[in-house]
Amino acid sequence: MTFLELAAKRSSIRGYKPDPVPEDWLAKVLEAGRLAPSAANKQPWHFIVVREEPARLKLQQAYPRDWFGKAPAILVVCVEPGKAWVRQDGKNYVSVDGAIAMDHMTLCAADLGLGTCWIGAFDPKKARDILGLPEGIEPLAMTPLGFPDAPPRPKSRKETAEILHYERW
Amino acid sequence: MTFLELAAKRSSIRGYKPDPVPEDWLAKVLEAGRLAPSAANKQPWHFIVVREEPARLKLQQAYPRDWFGKAPAILVVCVEPGKAWVRQDGKNYVSVDGAIAMDHMTLCAADLGLGTCWIGAFDPKKARDILGLPEGIEPLAMTPLGFPDAPPRPKSRKETAEILHYERW
Repeated sequence: MTFLELAAKRSSIRGYKPDPVPEDWLAKVLEAGRLAPSAANKQPWHFIVVREEPARLKLQQAYPRDWFGKAPAILVVCVEPGKAWVRQDGKNYVSVDGAIAMDHMTLCAADLGLGTCWIGAFDPKKARDILGLPEGIEPLAMTPLGFPDAPPRPKSRKETAEILHYERW
Repeated sequence: MTFLELAAKRSSIRGYKPDPVPEDWLAKVLEAGRLAPSAANKQPWHFIVVREEPARLKLQQAYPRDWFGKAPAILVVCVEPGKAWVRQDGKNYVSVDGAIAMDHMTLCAADLGLGTCWIGAFDPKKARDILGLPEGIEPLAMTPLGFPDAPPRPKSRKETAEILHYERW
């Protein structure tokens, strides 16, 4: 599978089989996240794997969808803005860094045949409390991880001409 | 090549051959970016391809490194915060979205054998001016794109145990 085929295949999955994610597959997904590049190589991230059912159902309180807590695993990417690289105009690149790590993990999962779904629309305060995050650590994105039990939705994207420019704007 | 192999192979390349990027390869890279997921599918991004030498050398003023302007192409991911999804606590996900698109493009390039290098440390004001960005559009990240003419540096990453947690923090 070429990368472009993988990018076309990866889709948000909103239904999961109860079967656990094989331990060595999970390790590959996490390794893909660990290898992600980051601004000035700061790697200002932490990954939390939530697999035990009580913990999953508790975390579901921060994102109340049945299919979310039913997935056999949930991955959470947390970031630490105080440890991230900051551009000369004050822009902190922590969200870029965390997004790259999560992107790597969702793509590795899709390559293995596992489903994921980027979730940003969780309640950040509840998520922080439930996950016990220390001061200075923020939840950026979550995804369920498991074998798909729902069809992928067809992708809808802007046309190339709407987003592409040559030489300058 | 598995995705994990691709993630391990991709590396920052700081030297490029003058050979142009084949047109159909560039199209694949851009397509990988176009297919990227984004929060609420807002796709709040624009891609600028800078290939003509005068334009590349001008853009180099925003990031003064010889190898940058010498690459046969430069890709710029610009984002539009006003069109992005915003979380309930006010966090704007535009940097996450733009990072995913750039991550997709750098990975597609590596899959094709092309080099890239994430660049965030450009002068944002100069970049805006040189690229002629309208109000409300911001440059998030750039990368040269071309055939590598410099060896990849070995990757240095935190150990898994430093960044991984189970069930909760």
